[in-house]
Amino acid sequence: MTPDYDQIINEIYNELKDASDEGTVADYIPDLAHIDRTKFGICLTTLDGEQNKVGDADEKFSLQSVTKVLSLSLVFSQLGNKVWDRVDVEPSGNGFNSIIQLEYENGFPRNPFINAGAIVIADMLVSLHKDPKAVFLNYIRGLCGNTDIQYNEKVALSEKSVGYGNYSLAYMIKSKGNLVNDVDEVLDFYFWQCSVEMTCAELAQTFLNFGETNVPFGHGNYMLTASQSRRMNALMLTCGFYDESGEFAFEVGLPGKSGVGGAIVALNPLRYCVSVWSPPLNVKGNSYKGMKALEMLTTKLGRSIF
Amino acid sequence: MTPDYDQIINEIYNELKDASDEGTVADYIPDLAHIDRTKFGICLTTLDGEQNKVGDADEKFSLQSVTKVLSLSLVFSQLGNKVWDRVDVEPSGNGFNSIIQLEYENGFPRNPFINAGAIVIADMLVSLHKDPKAVFLNYIRGLCGNTDIQYNEKVALSEKSVGYGNYSLAYMIKSKGNLVNDVDEVLDFYFWQCSVEMTCAELAQTFLNFGETNVPFGHGNYMLTASQSRRMNALMLTCGFYDESGEFAFEVGLPGKSGVGGAIVALNPLRYCVSVWSPPLNVKGNSYKGMKALEMLTTKLGRSIF
Amino acid sequence: MTPDYDQIINEIYNELKDASDEGTVADYIPDLAHIDRTKFGICLTTLDGEQNKVGDADEKFSLQSVTKVLSLSLVFSQLGNKVWDRVDVEPSGNGFNSIIQLEYENGFPRNPFINAGAIVIADMLVSLHKDPKAVFLNYIRGLCGNTDIQYNEKVALSEKSVGYGNYSLAYMIKSKGNLVNDVDEVLDFYFWQCSVEMTCAELAQTFLNFGETNVPFGHGNYMLTASQSRRMNALMLTCGFYDESGEFAFEVGLPGKSGVGGAIVALNPLRYCVSVWSPPLNVKGNSYKGMKALEMLTTKLGRSIF
Amino acid sequence: MTPDYDQIINEIYNELKDASDEGTVADYIPDLAHIDRTKFGICLTTLDGEQNKVGDADEKFSLQSVTKVLSLSLVFSQLGNKVWDRVDVEPSGNGFNSIIQLEYENGFPRNPFINAGAIVIADMLVSLHKDPKAVFLNYIRGLCGNTDIQYNEKVALSEKSVGYGNYSLAYMIKSKGNLVNDVDEVLDFYFWQCSVEMTCAELAQTFLNFGETNVPFGHGNYMLTASQSRRMNALMLTCGFYDESGEFAFEVGLPGKSGVGGAIVALNPLRYCVSVWSPPLNVKGNSYKGMKALEMLTTKLGRSIF
Repeated sequence: MTPDYDQIINEIYNELKDASDEGTVADYIPDLAHIDRTKFGICLTTLDGEQNKVGDADEKFSLQSVTKVLSLSLVFSQLGNKVWDRVDVEPSGNGFNSIIQLEYENGFPRNPFINAGAIVIADMLVSLHKDPKAVFLNYIRGLCGNTDIQYNEKVALSEKSVGYGNYSLAYMIKSKGNLVNDVDEVLDFYFWQCSVEMTCAELAQTFLNFGETNVPFGHGNYMLTASQSRRMNALMLTCGFYDESGEFAFEVGLPGKSGVGGAIVALNPLRYCVSVWSPPLNVKGNSYKGMKALEMLTTKLGRSIF
Repeated sequence: MTPDYDQIINEIYNELKDASDEGTVADYIPDLAHIDRTKFGICLTTLDGEQNKVGDADEKFSLQSVTKVLSLSLVFSQLGNKVWDRVDVEPSGNGFNSIIQLEYENGFPRNPFINAGAIVIADMLVSLHKDPKAVFLNYIRGLCGNTDIQYNEKVALSEKSVGYGNYSLAYMIKSKGNLVNDVDEVLDFYFWQCSVEMTCAELAQTFLNFGETNVPFGHGNYMLTASQSRRMNALMLTCGFYDESGEFAFEVGLPGKSGVGGAIVALNPLRYCVSVWSPPLNVKGNSYKGMKALEMLTTKLGRSIF
Repeated sequence: MTPDYDQIINEIYNELKDASDEGTVADYIPDLAHIDRTKFGICLTTLDGEQNKVGDADEKFSLQSVTKVLSLSLVFSQLGNKVWDRVDVEPSGNGFNSIIQLEYENGFPRNPFINAGAIVIADMLVSLHKDPKAVFLNYIRGLCGNTDIQYNEKVALSEKSVGYGNYSLAYMIKSKGNLVNDVDEVLDFYFWQCSVEMTCAELAQTFLNFGETNVPFGHGNYMLTASQSRRMNALMLTCGFYDESGEFAFEVGLPGKSGVGGAIVALNPLRYCVSVWSPPLNVKGNSYKGMKALEMLTTKLGRSIF
Repeated sequence: MTPDYDQIINEIYNELKDASDEGTVADYIPDLAHIDRTKFGICLTTLDGEQNKVGDADEKFSLQSVTKVLSLSLVFSQLGNKVWDRVDVEPSGNGFNSIIQLEYENGFPRNPFINAGAIVIADMLVSLHKDPKAVFLNYIRGLCGNTDIQYNEKVALSEKSVGYGNYSLAYMIKSKGNLVNDVDEVLDFYFWQCSVEMTCAELAQTFLNFGETNVPFGHGNYMLTASQSRRMNALMLTCGFYDESGEFAFEVGLPGKSGVGGAIVALNPLRYCVSVWSPPLNVKGNSYKGMKALEMLTTKLGRSIF
C-alpha cells in the first residue's frame, strides 16, 4: 500500500512551520546572508509520477553543495571508475572544508562531497569540456526536464570574492599534484556550479533520477548504469552530510545531500525523492528544519532504506 | 522473483576458492596467528527460512569485532538512546584503534564499532549486569537459537596478554571521565566478548534478526523496536568496516560488520543475511576474500539496499 | 662586576608577593590540591658559592616534572647517546600529556621532558637498576649534597590512584614496542620519582651542577661530561616548559624546568641557578608567578644566555 | 684566550670537503635545482672584527628562509611587541610548510620562521611600506654595510610560478582573518624577499649584528633594543631549524637559521657569527654539511651558548 505522502508532508510542514529554529543562516557568502530565514518548503515526488508540495516549494534557492552530486554524476558518466584514481569514497570524519586530511593524505580528498573532492571533480570537468559551465547546465536541465534552471552569477561572484578557504584547498591540492588546470579556472567553474538555483519541486525531480537504481539514467551522452547509480546513492548515504553523515543515516536512513543554502534532498531508491528548503543551519552546516523534517518523514513512514 | 541464492554463492565460492589472496592473517593476537589461511566458507540465510552454505561454513572461528554489533544491540535494548550520551554515531575516518580522535574529542568515541566505542559499550554492560559474560552469552545464544555458542578462553587470555593498545584506549577514556568501572574489569569482559566463536551458519542466523526491520526482535527482556533495528543497520553501513566503510557501502551496498578473525557478515534488510569467513585480511583489517565475495554477490544479484 | 643578586630577588619578591595571581593550583593529584596557594619562595645560588633566599625558600614542595631532568641526567650518565635511540630531543608542539604525537610517531616520544618521554626514561632506569628508587634518591641526594631529601609516598600513591592518562601513555608506548618492563612497574617508579620533595634552596643547589658546563659533574659513578651537560641545558631551553618552552626562551632566555607543584628552576650556565616556588599555574601548566619572577630577573640583570 | 678560529674552520673545511654527503639539493624551486652540489664555504666573523673564510665563502647564493630573520627584525623594530598579536613564538613541532597547525590554531602561526609565520610578517611589511622591496633591501644592505646585495628576480619568479603550497598557506591565513593585504601582493614580496643573495662573508657580517645583545643595533630608523636582540636569538634557537630545531640546539647549541639554498648562519652572542653554505639538504630541509660543520665547531671550541 502506498503511503499518503501528501498528508505526511503536510503534517510535517505544519508541525515545523512555526517551531523555534536554533539554526543560523550561513553568512560567509555575502549574497546569501540576507535570505529570509522563515522560508520553508517541501516537495516529495515518487517514481510513479506523484508530486506533493507544501510551503515555499516553488521558490528558487541556491543549491550550493547539493550540486556536488550532480557534477560527480556527470564526470562519473564520462570517466567511470577512473574518477576514483583521484578522489576516495570514504567519509571524512572532519568538517566540510578541512584541509588537514588533505595534507596528511597527500592531496587525495576523502570523497567527492567535501569541498576538496568537489574541486578535484571540477578540475576533471574543466579538462573534459571546452565550456564546462554550458555542459553542466545543460546536463542538469536535462535531468530535471526543465530549461528554466540558471546560474546566479551574482552569488557566484560574491562567493568567489571571499572564497579564500577554497583557494587554500585548491592550491594545496595543486601543490600535491592532484589538480591539472589553473586554480583560478577550476574555482571559477566551481563557484558557478555552486550558484545553480532550483525550487524544491525541481530539485526533487532532478534527484528522482538517482532513485532509478535498476535501469540506466542520465541525459544525452551522459548515462549512468544501474550499478553506478546505486554507488551514487551509497556515497550520498556515507558522505552526504559532512561530519553529520552518520547522524543522518542513523536518524533518517536515506541517501541525500545538503547545501549551505538550506536545501536537503534525499531519496528512497525505487520509491521517492524528497527535498526540503529552510535556510537556518545547525552547527554542522546542515539545514536545521530540513534534518528534522526528514527524521519525521521516515519515522511517520515507518521505513527507511534499512 | 527470488534469486537462486544457492547457485550464486556456489559460483562465488568456486571463483574465489583458488584465487590468489593478497591478504595477511592477523598475527597480533598470538592464538589467532596460526589459523589455516585457506579456510573459506559462505552462508546465506533468508528471512523466508532458506539456508545456503558452501565450503567451511560449519567450522567455528573467532568473531572478534563482529561481536561489537551484538554488545551494542544488547545495551541499546536496555538503555535506549541514553547510549548516545557516551558514544557517537559518526564514521571515524581513522583506523579501528586510533587514539587520536579520542584525545581531541575528549574521550567521546566516534562510534560503537571502533575499539574505543566498543570499550565504552562494554563498560555499560559491566555496570548493568552482575555477570555480564553470562548475560551476553545467553543473549546471543538466544538470537541464534543455539546453545552451542561459547567463549574461547584461550583466545581471550591470549589477546589480554598483549592487548596494550586497548589498555591505552581504555585508560585514555577513563582519564577523560567516560569509563565508570575499572579498566581491568571492563577489558576482561571486552576480551571475552571478542573471543566468541560461531560458524558461518550460526553467524548468518544470528544477524538475520537485524533484517527484521519492521517488527521488534530480540531475546528475553532484550528487545529492539523496528526503528532501533533500522538504526543498527545504518550504523553497520556507515561504521562497520573501520576506515573502509565507505568503500564497502560503495562496492557492496549492504550494512555489515567485519572482524580480524576473517569474518564478515552483511544483510539486506527484509531479505537475507550473508556471512563469509576467510582469514587473510587486507591492509584495512577486513577479510580480503570476504570483501570480494560480497562485491560479487550484490553485483550478481543486481541490487543492494540502494 | 657581579650583580647584586640578593637585592634583585628581594625586589622581585616584593613586587610579586601581593600581586594578583591568575593561576590555579593543580587539582588532578588529590594530595596536591589543598596546598596553600600563597606560598612563594625564591633562591638564587651562584657558582661562586653565594646563596640568596627570600620568602618560603626553605619549605619543602613536590618537584613533580622537575625530576624529569634528574632522571634523564642519571640515565644519560649511564647509557650516553643510546638514550636517543628511544626518545627524541625536539620540542613537542603539544601539551605535556598529549598522546597524539606518540601514535603518529610510533611510540617514539618527542623529548624526555614530556610525560611520554619521561616514562621511557623511567623504563630505562627500571632496566638498569634492581632498586631504581634507592639509586635515584641517592643520586639526587649526592647532587644536592644533602641526605634530607625524600619521596613523599602519600603523594606518589595519590597520583598513582588517578594517573589514568599516564597509564594510557605507557600502554601506548608498550603497544608500539618502546617499553621493556611492565607498565605497572615503570609507572610505580615514575610516580615515586615525581613525588620527591625539595626546598627552593635545595633545588637551586641541585641544578647548580648543570651550570658547570666546562667540567664533568655528577655523583659517584654517574658523571656527565661537559659536553653532555651543555646538551642537558639545551634540552631544558627547548623543551623544559611544555608548549610554553618558546615563550620562556623568548621572555626569560634561560634553560629551565617547571613542575605542576609550582616549582621552576632555571640557570645561566657558568653563573647561577635560580629556583622559584609558587603553586598557582597558568593555562600551560607552569607557575604563574614563577614565570613572572624569572622574566623580571633577566630583565633586571639585562642579560640572559643570549 | 681567544680560540684560533681560522685554524678551526680550516680543519672543519678539510674534514668535510670530500666527505660523502647524503643530502639532496632542493629541487622544488626550478631555478635552484641545478646548483653545483659541491659548493662549500665557511665564514666566521667576530665582534672584535676578525674575519676567517675558507672555500667558496665569497660566492653568492640564495638566502631563502634565512631572510625570515631579517624581515622579522625589520618589523619588530617598527611594531615592537604588537608583532606577537598575530604570530606566536613557539616551536612548531611540524615541518616548515605544514598547514595543519594553522587550521587547528585558527590562522595564528606558531612562529615567524615557518612559512606561515613569515607570510604574516610579510603582510605586516606590505602594510607598513609603500615599497617594501626597496625598504627591505635597503635595511639589509645597511645591516651588512654593503650595497652590493640584490634580489635575484629570476629565482623569485621561478619560485612564484610553482609556489602553490605557499599560496595555500596564505589563503588559509586570509580565510581565518590574519592577512590584511591581497594574497598576491603579500606573496610577491615574500618570494622577492626569499630570493636575496649573499656570500658567506656577507651573511656572517649581516647576522653579526644580532650578536650585539647588550647594545641597540639596526640601521636607520629600524633599531632593536638589546632586549629585543636577545629575543631574536631565543627565537632562532627554538625555531630556527623547523622540526630539527631541538636537534640543532642539542648538537650545536647556538641560535641560527637555515635556508633551502643550503645556507646556515649561527652565532654565539657577544662573540662571533658563523655562516656555512653547502647546497645538499638533509630530510628535514637543512644543509647536511652545514649541520655537521657547526657541530664540529662547537665541539672543537668546547663551548656553545650553554
